[in-house]
Amino acid sequence: MGRVTERRKVIRIRDGAISSRPDTLVTEEPLEIRLNGKPLAITMRTPGDDFALAAGFLVSEGVLAQHHDLQNIVYCAGATADGTNTYNVVDVTTTPGLPIPDITLERNVYTTSSCGLCGKASLDAVRTTTRWPLSDTPPLRIEPDLLASLPDRLRAAQRVFDRTGGLHAAALFTEHGELLDIREDVGRHNAVDKLIGRALQHHNLPLTRVILLVSGRASFELAQKAVMAGIPILAAVSAPSSLAVDLATETGLTLVGFLRGHSMNVYAGEDRITLQAVAAAQG
Amino acid sequence: MGRVTERRKVIRIRDGAISSRPDTLVTEEPLEIRLNGKPLAITMRTPGDDFALAAGFLVSEGVLAQHHDLQNIVYCAGATADGTNTYNVVDVTTTPGLPIPDITLERNVYTTSSCGLCGKASLDAVRTTTRWPLSDTPPLRIEPDLLASLPDRLRAAQRVFDRTGGLHAAALFTEHGELLDIREDVGRHNAVDKLIGRALQHHNLPLTRVILLVSGRASFELAQKAVMAGIPILAAVSAPSSLAVDLATETGLTLVGFLRGHSMNVYAGEDRITLQAVAAAQG
Repeated sequence: MGRVTERRKVIRIRDGAISSRPDTLVTEEPLEIRLNGKPLAITMRTPGDDFALAAGFLVSEGVLAQHHDLQNIVYCAGATADGTNTYNVVDVTTTPGLPIPDITLERNVYTTSSCGLCGKASLDAVRTTTRWPLSDTPPLRIEPDLLASLPDRLRAAQRVFDRTGGLHAAALFTEHGELLDIREDVGRHNAVDKLIGRALQHHNLPLTRVILLVSGRASFELAQKAVMAGIPILAAVSAPSSLAVDLATETGLTLVGFLRGHSMNVYAGEDRITLQAVAAAQG
Repeated sequence: MGRVTERRKVIRIRDGAISSRPDTLVTEEPLEIRLNGKPLAITMRTPGDDFALAAGFLVSEGVLAQHHDLQNIVYCAGATADGTNTYNVVDVTTTPGLPIPDITLERNVYTTSSCGLCGKASLDAVRTTTRWPLSDTPPLRIEPDLLASLPDRLRAAQRVFDRTGGLHAAALFTEHGELLDIREDVGRHNAVDKLIGRALQHHNLPLTRVILLVSGRASFELAQKAVMAGIPILAAVSAPSSLAVDLATETGLTLVGFLRGHSMNVYAGEDRITLQAVAAAQG
């Protein structure tokens, strides 16, 4: 894809010393997502995996839930002044007959017709829209030590970050801690959409028995994406928000925050974490 | 406002020890912004300074540019099931006769009618929309040491972060390094919108001769907000994106990244940084 990073001149100041040299930056470009020919959303993203990004975005929005729902995805023909394709507009065509939910004016939030918008309405919308209720058979049981090992492995697999320092990362791991997939993007939500979209493309939805790890904070939006893809465990290196915890509690999502070293906070769904083992070791 | 943080039960695992206790989380709630009665955008934000957030958002979008453009802002009357106001919907009324630009489907990105969406189109839109061309009289000259001192002062002023670890911060400083204002929010763009909206409310737009410092990365969106508010210098603790650098270069914004300790990278507008002094000290 060649466009994941770009070079720009930079003046570096390091403890009083000045130098000028080319620097590698993460690429940021707009992507317009169209649904059946109609513009739906624009996101600022790092180019690459654009079809997966669009598909994953539509999973989060409740439009797609499995591979069969998707007919095809194409880049729209170019229309810049010089006629070249910018590869910044994708059109997603759904399978004929697929019901399309109302998509509201801003991604990831559902509004009511009245003035009574509230966090509860956002929670209800996710709970009633998801087609993959979270349930594990047999029950998932993850050791805290396994979770603790994941951030280092995410970091080791972040190739673009090493060059730019400018990317969010998201990764999927099996219940045994094996890395399934990792995506990086200037937008944290895009990295997760790309993971989920690739899973849809490979017939892997719902993402049962996997752990989603994100490099930053756990917002409502990221918890929503996990729930919509059927992911049972969301772990974040930083803090969750109140609404992310509330959504996890309501839907049965396991939400782990501040995953650093051998420490972590479990905010919801603690039945999937083997606290007994820890307690035994403690005694 | 009382809703900036909330308490939730958390299970803490610290090097094998388990404890359960209440934890303080940053509040995240949806805010719907209406323009002259018409729904325009929904953002997930930390409650507080909602009128400023709405006003600042509309500055970024090119709707408002000064205090006189704004007639009033109100919370819409409540309409939850029990009739209480959620304080999550604000309606902004502009001064009669104010021309309203086309607002597209997603915040901060301008689309074209053709398929030719590209980074260049985003840059052009900001450059042609801003009503505050960046120019300093007399020319601004900032010492690198002054810039280097700002992140510690931002961190010291971050009150909610200390309790939750879950917030982005943005602050405005004078050219002499005095803290003018600081806002914290779950969304980085919201923190900046709140700063800019408060400046509009206090008749302080354009924000000439100030430095905007953000706790994270410098995306296109944040550079756009700086330019639309007439802010000449944007400094970020982390990396900028390619499009943020391009926008800064095109508009004359000074963009500093990786501002850590006594080191920083200057990506654009280096004429406002006194590199001579550094070079002299170097010699």
